[in-house]
Amino acid sequence: MSGNTLGRLFSVTTFGESHGPALGAIVDGCPPGLALSEQDLQGDLDRRRPGTSRHTSQRRETDEVRILSGVFEGKTTGAPIGLLIENMDQRSRDYSKIADVFRPGHADYTYWQKFGIRDYRGGGRSSARETALRVAAGGIARKFLHERLGVQIRGWLTQLGPIHLNLEDWGEVDNNPFFCGEPSRIPELEAYMDALRKEGDSVGAAVGVLARGVPPGLGEPIFDRLDADLAHALMSINAVKGVEIGAGFASAGQKGTEHRDEITPEGFLSNNAGGTLGGISTGQDIVAKIALKPTSSIRLPGQSVDIHGKAVEVVTTGRHDPCVGIRATPIAEAMMAIVLLDHYLRHRGQNADVNSGTPVIPAQPSSSNP
Amino acid sequence: MSGNTLGRLFSVTTFGESHGPALGAIVDGCPPGLALSEQDLQGDLDRRRPGTSRHTSQRRETDEVRILSGVFEGKTTGAPIGLLIENMDQRSRDYSKIADVFRPGHADYTYWQKFGIRDYRGGGRSSARETALRVAAGGIARKFLHERLGVQIRGWLTQLGPIHLNLEDWGEVDNNPFFCGEPSRIPELEAYMDALRKEGDSVGAAVGVLARGVPPGLGEPIFDRLDADLAHALMSINAVKGVEIGAGFASAGQKGTEHRDEITPEGFLSNNAGGTLGGISTGQDIVAKIALKPTSSIRLPGQSVDIHGKAVEVVTTGRHDPCVGIRATPIAEAMMAIVLLDHYLRHRGQNADVNSGTPVIPAQPSSSNP
Amino acid sequence: MSGNTLGRLFSVTTFGESHGPALGAIVDGCPPGLALSEQDLQGDLDRRRPGTSRHTSQRRETDEVRILSGVFEGKTTGAPIGLLIENMDQRSRDYSKIADVFRPGHADYTYWQKFGIRDYRGGGRSSARETALRVAAGGIARKFLHERLGVQIRGWLTQLGPIHLNLEDWGEVDNNPFFCGEPSRIPELEAYMDALRKEGDSVGAAVGVLARGVPPGLGEPIFDRLDADLAHALMSINAVKGVEIGAGFASAGQKGTEHRDEITPEGFLSNNAGGTLGGISTGQDIVAKIALKPTSSIRLPGQSVDIHGKAVEVVTTGRHDPCVGIRATPIAEAMMAIVLLDHYLRHRGQNADVNSGTPVIPAQPSSSNP
Amino acid sequence: MSGNTLGRLFSVTTFGESHGPALGAIVDGCPPGLALSEQDLQGDLDRRRPGTSRHTSQRRETDEVRILSGVFEGKTTGAPIGLLIENMDQRSRDYSKIADVFRPGHADYTYWQKFGIRDYRGGGRSSARETALRVAAGGIARKFLHERLGVQIRGWLTQLGPIHLNLEDWGEVDNNPFFCGEPSRIPELEAYMDALRKEGDSVGAAVGVLARGVPPGLGEPIFDRLDADLAHALMSINAVKGVEIGAGFASAGQKGTEHRDEITPEGFLSNNAGGTLGGISTGQDIVAKIALKPTSSIRLPGQSVDIHGKAVEVVTTGRHDPCVGIRATPIAEAMMAIVLLDHYLRHRGQNADVNSGTPVIPAQPSSSNP
Repeated sequence: MSGNTLGRLFSVTTFGESHGPALGAIVDGCPPGLALSEQDLQGDLDRRRPGTSRHTSQRRETDEVRILSGVFEGKTTGAPIGLLIENMDQRSRDYSKIADVFRPGHADYTYWQKFGIRDYRGGGRSSARETALRVAAGGIARKFLHERLGVQIRGWLTQLGPIHLNLEDWGEVDNNPFFCGEPSRIPELEAYMDALRKEGDSVGAAVGVLARGVPPGLGEPIFDRLDADLAHALMSINAVKGVEIGAGFASAGQKGTEHRDEITPEGFLSNNAGGTLGGISTGQDIVAKIALKPTSSIRLPGQSVDIHGKAVEVVTTGRHDPCVGIRATPIAEAMMAIVLLDHYLRHRGQNADVNSGTPVIPAQPSSSNP
Repeated sequence: MSGNTLGRLFSVTTFGESHGPALGAIVDGCPPGLALSEQDLQGDLDRRRPGTSRHTSQRRETDEVRILSGVFEGKTTGAPIGLLIENMDQRSRDYSKIADVFRPGHADYTYWQKFGIRDYRGGGRSSARETALRVAAGGIARKFLHERLGVQIRGWLTQLGPIHLNLEDWGEVDNNPFFCGEPSRIPELEAYMDALRKEGDSVGAAVGVLARGVPPGLGEPIFDRLDADLAHALMSINAVKGVEIGAGFASAGQKGTEHRDEITPEGFLSNNAGGTLGGISTGQDIVAKIALKPTSSIRLPGQSVDIHGKAVEVVTTGRHDPCVGIRATPIAEAMMAIVLLDHYLRHRGQNADVNSGTPVIPAQPSSSNP
Repeated sequence: MSGNTLGRLFSVTTFGESHGPALGAIVDGCPPGLALSEQDLQGDLDRRRPGTSRHTSQRRETDEVRILSGVFEGKTTGAPIGLLIENMDQRSRDYSKIADVFRPGHADYTYWQKFGIRDYRGGGRSSARETALRVAAGGIARKFLHERLGVQIRGWLTQLGPIHLNLEDWGEVDNNPFFCGEPSRIPELEAYMDALRKEGDSVGAAVGVLARGVPPGLGEPIFDRLDADLAHALMSINAVKGVEIGAGFASAGQKGTEHRDEITPEGFLSNNAGGTLGGISTGQDIVAKIALKPTSSIRLPGQSVDIHGKAVEVVTTGRHDPCVGIRATPIAEAMMAIVLLDHYLRHRGQNADVNSGTPVIPAQPSSSNP
Repeated sequence: MSGNTLGRLFSVTTFGESHGPALGAIVDGCPPGLALSEQDLQGDLDRRRPGTSRHTSQRRETDEVRILSGVFEGKTTGAPIGLLIENMDQRSRDYSKIADVFRPGHADYTYWQKFGIRDYRGGGRSSARETALRVAAGGIARKFLHERLGVQIRGWLTQLGPIHLNLEDWGEVDNNPFFCGEPSRIPELEAYMDALRKEGDSVGAAVGVLARGVPPGLGEPIFDRLDADLAHALMSINAVKGVEIGAGFASAGQKGTEHRDEITPEGFLSNNAGGTLGGISTGQDIVAKIALKPTSSIRLPGQSVDIHGKAVEVVTTGRHDPCVGIRATPIAEAMMAIVLLDHYLRHRGQNADVNSGTPVIPAQPSSSNP
């Protein structure tokens, strides 16, 4: 409850640092009877894992997750699920150079100022390595949502620095290291990343994520709206600086006649709402987009100060992602899965005896792509 | 805790519908000893109040708040503060026409599908009238932050439909009904709004909000980051479809050398971070921006269905804001105040014995405007 | 969330002081579709109300509750329910004598030490007057549990000072001011209380409370057990110093063969467990007992100190209950109702798809009396 | 948050089953800068550990805890602390006999009815083995409270079946397997336990626990009172059926003049309150007592039913504690430590700027023994 927990009925609490012995999570509130094994979670972990292409960090981690509790004879029991991933490649290199220095754009300064002590090895708790456990926990939520409700959650890259990308083919998204759904642009992405790496710089990105098949009614007024809880969960991903639901910032320039999604007996005619009205799911695709800043771990020198306030020049060596946004896709999917399952359980708890039957408005989305 | 509460140590729970007898809130966890009276809250309530210019809803509400508890001899006691605003102008008009109809872009359908019952009078619980209590509660947080820490929180209009606005003069923001900080553009805004009203349409908007003087160290890893909690609180405002912190979506197109805020012994050289690193405040201005959709309550007919799924044409009559974004400025400020005070108390609880002394990096922002 | 809220999915937050203008509560998470009006709550409020017999405080309060939100056309909507009770008889007498003095056995000292400020009028926030709102909120939970699940919740007096009481006749409990279920002893109770009042002293009491018809399965491992949450809720009642579930403290002297409730196809053979095993309801009666200390507001002088640490003699004048335990019965019932409904909703949320069908062990309790 | 978490600012979440590969916990919200190593926690774990005398379960577990995160260079960092204990002696014996049977007095039936699935090996999640992690987590709280505030927390056995025990000598409590503070009675206890073991029966017990040196002001009105949260935490310990604070159930028979703790400039004259008034600590010893039922795992046959409702006779074989109350002492201490630290941090968060200085009433307890 003290900052490292997400969710109310379905909740995830994580621990672990970049260079500690292991990272772990407790997933509490998973409904019983769900078939579950490590293999169910490994697929998404592998999609997030570093070192799988030359465009991500070269740290070598197998990210093999162990389920330590909450599963009996292959099924969840309703007891909390303990997850553990051991760190394999936490190089014991010399950190003395950065121990007293605040790297610009990193959490070094704020952790120091907040806690008065800082595990500086690889970013410690603030490292994106922590997101491995989110992906594992999200995999549990995802499996439940898919098996019991038919919900499908998918993410894709919408922007990499100056390159904006369409989603042309869902089938291609997982066939390239960028989660790019416009296959013809992949050579362009590779060329850009290769140049960037040579340059020693990094770049931002944007990622879309959607959930299809979500029943109407999920989300609570007033503060625990589905969109507000999604914004919270997505903004909590390292490096995220913006979250949009549906038309997002474009809404500010729209007129009411343009934005409002008209309805016919066959379904909604558009989805500017991104699948929520009044903070509650409509049955349409839930669509969100996030912006990720360029990683601040770059070889090019930058100005900063040390813990005594003295000016220093900082150069970040070590293994880093030149574009953290690339690996963010499975993380965003995981966050969406956790939020949706939590709200599904909450909704069921409060409203299980509302006999809503078949939704009045068919769930058929306005088009097959977001 | 069941959806209508925000905050952990400083928490706000609201109740009330657009056309019920009254709206109210309980503010729990306000530190004792703060001088507080109704007058302290009325100023912000008046800034949010409808009917103060021809550009907002013509509903006549005095929005006078009563403090029912938690204050003794003019000071807060640490006990929960009960707040009450009576509704004065809930016209008893005939709602039979919309009782069975889902207005497009409204929460009508989702409330119906979730709860199986719906207070259709003026939007019921989903009405933005609920935000009056947020402003009152936020006013308490704001007063504490200002008096004890010197924090200043301010919002301003950055976009109204096609019109993008600069912030040239803080002093002018409260002198016009738009919260516009570029006074020379006000005639343009008025002309646009007058035309829009004749047209019967509505329009979106964007609002910026910043907090100056926030000490470094506020925000908790991992899920309860300051930026994530801000995103949650801001996205919970009616009509908000997007939230940015600092450079926001522009980050996706930036390089690391461009985005990272370099540091000198005199302070940060820029504020792309928007005042948070690793989810924790840096001491710089906390800067957020939100996009609000155009209200869906418009006179122009739209297609929809009724509760039986039959096609209907919907025209929204009644009193509505043609641009809900205009009145959103004090609401956004209130949400930021609530989140900041909650995190200040949490931080103090967990880290009060960290003797951080004077922050290593001076708080002086890179420039006086966001 | 900051101390004045109880419950997760069904939650109650209260505000108000003994001598303020009003007390109130927000009941959040009540399922929609429940028929509800003020009259449904007034009955229990009247049972708790002071001044109804010569054996309780002579303060005159009508304790009329108003429902300000969350109910539409006579049914709950799923929105938060605002409750308000105005104080009528907060005598404006002179409190200057006790303003600087810590009455022994009261919260005067601890509030002072914690908050540095204290509303000393009638005990302020620490007054048992706050429990009126618990009774109103509990009435909502009680109605849901009764109408939807057939649960009956009842309390009774088990001890008044030296007098131990049996429960012989449920039907008589509400026919006397003591909630005594052994009608032949009522003259004895009256004589005792009359003597006590003359003496100027006060006395302790014990109260039993049970819930019949609770389905098996409510309660969560490990910390949010049903019995643990009951203990929390019951211990939060003013003056309560002990809580027992089932055999309670007698369990410490029992052998396993004696304590364990054996089971036959017709049901459990006893109920030492008090209706919970492993923190989860068994389907038997949930049985709890609480001990309440004698009120410390007595006419007989006692030693204390003032806020400067100087010795003073304290005599409490004003209107007080010589035995707060008498009026505690409806409060204990309310607390049990709130905890049970919260756990029912949580259970439904997490396990709604567990098709448990008819419970394996019939719910028939071992005997009709606790 | 979903049942397996305790605490708000200092929170503990546990996972693990009796016969799974490992048990673990995440301790979130521990203030930074506390010196901490595994050795600091092992002492209490060893006190709780089974198999250390012939009077407890003969299961052989080393209960060695590993700290996986949150500690850097020997000090806590403010990041969540991951704890892990591997199970060593989970005998792979044949459980087919009890897989379909509900042992009377166990959680077998309620878990089955709640979850529809049950890890029957050694009680699964409902096993008291889970309390090892509470002891480890409590050890962290305990160390903080002791080092920073000088708080001492101690428990002792007050009753073992028919034998009531005094606390004569704190120094002896840890020198015998019973946590008995009346050394002359130990032979009596041993004889009783030996006879009981031969008999094949089990017995209940009662345990006292106190905290000395707690500053005044901890605990929140109304629901999160210190005593209410203690009742919750203590009742959540397996087998606990009753909780008392201070005079407890004896209060029901007391008069006001007898119960109220009078005050002099030198301190309180008695401690019937058990260290809390109005739910907030007074600075006196916090004193609680708990009753534990006899374990239901006994060799003597009992009646029950199987999952099909058919009558069966149950005999519990395997390794069990004939008196679970014996090992409960370190668990009760741990629960008190967790609750106190959580409330200390909450109090500091909300009231850090209350300059209360030296408490008005000296903390000197009325006598050195409870």
